[in-house]
Amino acid sequence: MASMADETGLGKRAANYVPLTPLSHLNRARDIFGNLDALVYGPTRRTYRELHNRTTRLAGGLAGLGVRPGDVVSTVCPNIPAIAEAHFGVPACGAVLNTINTRLDPDTLAYILVHGEAKVAIADTQFLPVVREAITMMDGTGPTIIEAEDPDAGFPASGEFQTYEDLVAHGDPAFEWIMPDDEWDSLALNYTSGTTGRPKGVVCHHRGAYLMTLGTAISWEIGTRPKFLTIVPLFHCNGWCHTWMMPLLGGQITCCRDITARAVFNAIADEKITHMGGAPIVYNTLINAKSEDRREFNHQVYGLTAGAAPSPATIKGAEALGFRFMQVYGLTETYGHVTAAYEPEHWKSLDAEERYNLMARIGVRYPMMEDIEVVCTDTRQPVPHDGQTMGEVIIRGNCVMKGYYKDESASNKAFSSGYLRSGDIAVREPDGYIRITDRMKDIIISGGENISSVEIENVLMAHPAVSLCAVVARPDPKWGEVPCAFLELKEGATAEKAEVIAFVRQRLAGFKTPRHVVFQELPKTSTGKIQKFELRKTAKAL
Amino acid sequence: MASMADETGLGKRAANYVPLTPLSHLNRARDIFGNLDALVYGPTRRTYRELHNRTTRLAGGLAGLGVRPGDVVSTVCPNIPAIAEAHFGVPACGAVLNTINTRLDPDTLAYILVHGEAKVAIADTQFLPVVREAITMMDGTGPTIIEAEDPDAGFPASGEFQTYEDLVAHGDPAFEWIMPDDEWDSLALNYTSGTTGRPKGVVCHHRGAYLMTLGTAISWEIGTRPKFLTIVPLFHCNGWCHTWMMPLLGGQITCCRDITARAVFNAIADEKITHMGGAPIVYNTLINAKSEDRREFNHQVYGLTAGAAPSPATIKGAEALGFRFMQVYGLTETYGHVTAAYEPEHWKSLDAEERYNLMARIGVRYPMMEDIEVVCTDTRQPVPHDGQTMGEVIIRGNCVMKGYYKDESASNKAFSSGYLRSGDIAVREPDGYIRITDRMKDIIISGGENISSVEIENVLMAHPAVSLCAVVARPDPKWGEVPCAFLELKEGATAEKAEVIAFVRQRLAGFKTPRHVVFQELPKTSTGKIQKFELRKTAKAL
Repeated sequence: MASMADETGLGKRAANYVPLTPLSHLNRARDIFGNLDALVYGPTRRTYRELHNRTTRLAGGLAGLGVRPGDVVSTVCPNIPAIAEAHFGVPACGAVLNTINTRLDPDTLAYILVHGEAKVAIADTQFLPVVREAITMMDGTGPTIIEAEDPDAGFPASGEFQTYEDLVAHGDPAFEWIMPDDEWDSLALNYTSGTTGRPKGVVCHHRGAYLMTLGTAISWEIGTRPKFLTIVPLFHCNGWCHTWMMPLLGGQITCCRDITARAVFNAIADEKITHMGGAPIVYNTLINAKSEDRREFNHQVYGLTAGAAPSPATIKGAEALGFRFMQVYGLTETYGHVTAAYEPEHWKSLDAEERYNLMARIGVRYPMMEDIEVVCTDTRQPVPHDGQTMGEVIIRGNCVMKGYYKDESASNKAFSSGYLRSGDIAVREPDGYIRITDRMKDIIISGGENISSVEIENVLMAHPAVSLCAVVARPDPKWGEVPCAFLELKEGATAEKAEVIAFVRQRLAGFKTPRHVVFQELPKTSTGKIQKFELRKTAKAL
Repeated sequence: MASMADETGLGKRAANYVPLTPLSHLNRARDIFGNLDALVYGPTRRTYRELHNRTTRLAGGLAGLGVRPGDVVSTVCPNIPAIAEAHFGVPACGAVLNTINTRLDPDTLAYILVHGEAKVAIADTQFLPVVREAITMMDGTGPTIIEAEDPDAGFPASGEFQTYEDLVAHGDPAFEWIMPDDEWDSLALNYTSGTTGRPKGVVCHHRGAYLMTLGTAISWEIGTRPKFLTIVPLFHCNGWCHTWMMPLLGGQITCCRDITARAVFNAIADEKITHMGGAPIVYNTLINAKSEDRREFNHQVYGLTAGAAPSPATIKGAEALGFRFMQVYGLTETYGHVTAAYEPEHWKSLDAEERYNLMARIGVRYPMMEDIEVVCTDTRQPVPHDGQTMGEVIIRGNCVMKGYYKDESASNKAFSSGYLRSGDIAVREPDGYIRITDRMKDIIISGGENISSVEIENVLMAHPAVSLCAVVARPDPKWGEVPCAFLELKEGATAEKAEVIAFVRQRLAGFKTPRHVVFQELPKTSTGKIQKFELRKTAKAL
């Protein structure tokens, strides 16, 4: 510390130092937004005063089950109120929130419950079968199960476990929240859906989540009282921390259990949703929705997208529906989005295709991030801003995870060189924006040339018959690897392999043109990401 | 710290922990807002890239003068670019910025330079005489003087000292910024204009200033690229930290040397100012400006006010001019504003007078503040929300000073009870809002009843002839104290004492009616605050 000549009496005190935590937002929201709707789900509407009260009871109930500061509480829930409330109630008893992907197999679920040492697991009734099976695979008794029933959705309580509503109803309404002693205290443990090997547990702290909420509110220019729809699963990066941001703004969280075009359109029209986020596939679902699933809306909806660069068709379609659309980029390791495709004024006057092309980049870093750079994978020096030279995206700042739980070696590897290594390959364009060209492992190396699978995918998405596509490397005796394209076609549309190949060849160099084209439904993760490792297996076996 | 079962490898690293500092905003602004105007003053326009470069050179120049981390660098400047740049260049060499009020007498100025141990003082040419005189009163040589000349304003360089522009021109353009090791490191030393005794030095840290900028951007709903006019002196609470906020938003700082109606109207019209702050007297100056000083403008200007509750006439007049007006409240000890009169939707449909009355309160605390309470001065328990019971405002959160420099006893007193004691008296109304009724020392106690001087002043301000007023206690043999009113009248207006007293009596209880009325110009501080201690002396001598 750089001291002044005399620092006597200038230390931290209760009056001037409060560890940063999103819990503070909910205390403030109770005080100043107490009568506003905080949480909406079907006929359920809860004000901030009620959400605060239920948070207290949930924290008290968990403490009553023996949960102590630093313990892990898991959820296996879709986006229902229980998981949103757990984002506050679990840390309010000092515990660490571990939201688990509902689509996992029992073996992986068991691995996570054992690795994280969950004391309690809040499980949605729909997912009890897989939870039960996971527990039979574990040594010992496993976590205490609290069942979150959802009778309106067709999932009444099984009667086998204490229900979530019962836990809340019997929790101590005077329970005193356990605020973090240290803002570095762990807040969340998020297992990444690793495509190979066991998932790694990303540990996030209170400080980072707090700063994420402030930085997001500013960079997305949200203003007060937004109406937010949960589409990104809260088990994915805590839904990009948006749930923790809503009390900061007096915003309303509308829960959405199943992400269908009908459910999203209904929420936008009925709840006047102003803000949402989702992978490009979510917007494609809306764009391609059947007329009976659509609803008209006249207000502006601010839509973020992440997980993959949006194709021109997606941007165009989303804007036509009424979205103000922006791509963001980040990782589970960075609490979600840390850089955005913020649109400067002059893009608006560009030719539409050129504008869509620019919007498919990112590069305006969020204010809580200190540095985001693209470096040569060999020299670790910044790549030139030439739009050509590929390098790895590296990230430094206060919204970077503490590390991987119980995996110091993986943490050290991720943090080598003083930055977080993203594993994503990108180029830096002359205006400083970053274009992600591929995951390091998705790059296709053909005849010694690096080929971005994303570049080919963007061309394929412009084909009138294509609804969704993925390009992966297929081993090739002559070239090492060649591109292999997998396509989902639009309903009723048809296409020929040769014609698709010719379509790409007209637009890209020969070595980038797929040698193989396969029409099939694409395997996807719960967040809509295409599972390329499955397609690589298929391609190899062709 | 509440630890998880295994925290191995989860500590702080360069990649995931960066001490919070507003310097980070300027680094980011160079990267993403590099071509936007950062600083404007007359014909001078500097982009963020240029401001960043000049900050580097200024920091390098100061280091070259022997300034080391933790040292103090003072300014004696009005709102010219040099003081705005010093907000970045001084901390960028690790030093602590001490902006000194330009209106101080030489004795007090000498006291501050000695007490703060300033190594360098950047002094505007206009204020060199008082600086020279102060230095002759000091032991030793005093600080190195750097002269900030302003020839366009009629203050060419004296030739006696190295100029500010020369220092910047010769500063090392490759100087590596000294970012704080610890976010608790001191950033600013602000001497409060104490009304009695020597001023106290309020020490602020990097963490608080960073959080202030984020919290303000959110609560004021600023959005990106505001155009900000510096009216509050940057030597007063660092101009409420707005200068540090502008690079966060890619905003433009327009400097204003002399706060005249003409200068403010010109800036609003020519620079399309969108945001400004100032004491109510600043808005009164605009409202009452002569027609030749006025300019038309058609855009919305967001105006904060603080320092005193705005009268209904001030709010009405400011809104009529085109301001969206909001009162905020805070202290030098809280980096400026920490709670606001945020206007809920339903106020807009109220009767105008009722709405103005509600807007003269505060109560929506800024997100970086943990708690703002009104407590009984005896029991220290929260007062009831009855709008009647007076108590002291107390404040806790991350925008509270480290303490008073070299005055542990004053720090301990200010921080007794775990909160910062504001010294302001207020009531809490049923909707939770806070109405400041007085400074503790300004309360009038008449026949055992507490009388708020502010309540009487609000009535007087509604009198058609009154331009400005202040009410203070006058010792009285029968009642202990009685209210004594001092009035400035509008140009050309006249009023009679008896008629003024009758005007108040019609609207307030008899014991609140002034017994004495004096017509005179009111003594004011540099920030427009009326100096009631002077008026108390006058009242006593009547």
